[in-house]
Amino acid sequence: MTPEPFAMRFAQARVKYGPLVFGLDPSAKVLADWGLGDDPGGLERFVDITLEAAVGVVGTVKPQSAFYERHGWRGLRTLARLVSEARSAGLLVLLDAKRGDVGSTNEAYAEAYLGEGAGMPVDAMTVTAYLGLGAMREFIDRAVAHACGLFVVTRSSNPEGRVIQEAIGTNGQSVEGRLVADIARLNAALAPGGQGPVGAVFGPTHGPPRGMDLKGMGGLFLAPGVGEQGATPGDVAACFASCPERVLPSASRCLLACGPEVAALKGAISKLNAQLQHSLGL
Amino acid sequence: MTPEPFAMRFAQARVKYGPLVFGLDPSAKVLADWGLGDDPGGLERFVDITLEAAVGVVGTVKPQSAFYERHGWRGLRTLARLVSEARSAGLLVLLDAKRGDVGSTNEAYAEAYLGEGAGMPVDAMTVTAYLGLGAMREFIDRAVAHACGLFVVTRSSNPEGRVIQEAIGTNGQSVEGRLVADIARLNAALAPGGQGPVGAVFGPTHGPPRGMDLKGMGGLFLAPGVGEQGATPGDVAACFASCPERVLPSASRCLLACGPEVAALKGAISKLNAQLQHSLGL
Repeated sequence: MTPEPFAMRFAQARVKYGPLVFGLDPSAKVLADWGLGDDPGGLERFVDITLEAAVGVVGTVKPQSAFYERHGWRGLRTLARLVSEARSAGLLVLLDAKRGDVGSTNEAYAEAYLGEGAGMPVDAMTVTAYLGLGAMREFIDRAVAHACGLFVVTRSSNPEGRVIQEAIGTNGQSVEGRLVADIARLNAALAPGGQGPVGAVFGPTHGPPRGMDLKGMGGLFLAPGVGEQGATPGDVAACFASCPERVLPSASRCLLACGPEVAALKGAISKLNAQLQHSLGL
Repeated sequence: MTPEPFAMRFAQARVKYGPLVFGLDPSAKVLADWGLGDDPGGLERFVDITLEAAVGVVGTVKPQSAFYERHGWRGLRTLARLVSEARSAGLLVLLDAKRGDVGSTNEAYAEAYLGEGAGMPVDAMTVTAYLGLGAMREFIDRAVAHACGLFVVTRSSNPEGRVIQEAIGTNGQSVEGRLVADIARLNAALAPGGQGPVGAVFGPTHGPPRGMDLKGMGGLFLAPGVGEQGATPGDVAACFASCPERVLPSASRCLLACGPEVAALKGAISKLNAQLQHSLGL
């Protein structure tokens, strides 16, 4: 039985817990601060602690693939356990992997992560479109078939990305603006009048999204960088004023800094979730 | 003992075998065509066959991470074996992973793949700079420290990427042109007068590189898409006429189509290597 589309599952989780996405980023620093080894064993403990902290207080977790790849295939085995146990516990898993390549390779990445027959099935994932949104057909087809969500990096939270994302294409639109417009067309065709499977990663740290119709994009927004990277709940609310119910604000370092005690982590998550709900007027 | 820089190791391999890079892309189609299971066991056999075929006829192999990720963590375990056995056999391994994120995450990706303490140490890897070349400092620092090569996707071989790569930035340069210029500055600072660690993925299928000083970039070029994606040895020679000795032309599907017999694979690899050597005037 195919589940409901990811956008609907997120909406249900948002009503229940709030919009926050808990970023599970076991950097070397976090492992050291928590007194864990910077090795697969330490990673296993990190996963146990953060899953226990997440259940019951947040709807979506976002492991960043890089921090598991650091530990080679054993790290990926731990990531696979994280994904499986989180989903079994009712959490949505958004894998932050930022994959992206030519079409035939994107097909393989889609087969790796989307759908129950995948190598490591998740609910949603991030992708990067430097090789063109037009090369992402296989990602989109599999996301539709398996009710998964896709988040295309459009406007990143860091300053270094502006050089590329603000560049102006032959049609007069910025790179990021054209991605938003092209995603809107895809979603309008896939889910007329509703919300489609193609979302955007959209950093709220660069001021208002001038010239872009975020609500009209017809999809969800992952807003990274809340807390440590400088975005406040107010920044999130201002950026997504036209569609506050469609934002997944993500925080990792500012929450993990409260660990490794599970109760402290749960408290920090709940507090930030409440702040975001209030700021977004949900 | 730190090895020689990747550019020098590639130059030595090029003189010995020719410039060809053998793409190890076990797609579902290749596994089926070869009579192998589309599962970790089939993947293991694919690795055995292609490594045997590669040794002695080609200098560099390029596994595409997506086709191993398809099989979850077990696929990554097979990829780790491939990488380790290839390097032990004297092959250079260029991992085609196209990773790229904000700086703190790029640090984790660099720790995953670059240097002997990495989770899966390779000789070189591809990265994607949609989040900015300026966010890649950790990749570059580790590449320098461990004599690895980096290849930043600049001009991709597929048509869908043109929309983004041809867009014009605030300084009047195209996205791809600015990347080439910025990489040139990095290499000039890191290896004055020589070749630096930062290369580019640069597709030869879109005509001459107008307005870009490829030789002046001071690094290597990975030229994907030879064969199946439409580029001929002549296209490669025309695109890189200013620096033919710095090109790594890569082919996968057109070679794998000659398998799974090892002798037939070796023959196809040697023939294409000779064609490329001739076309490039090496």
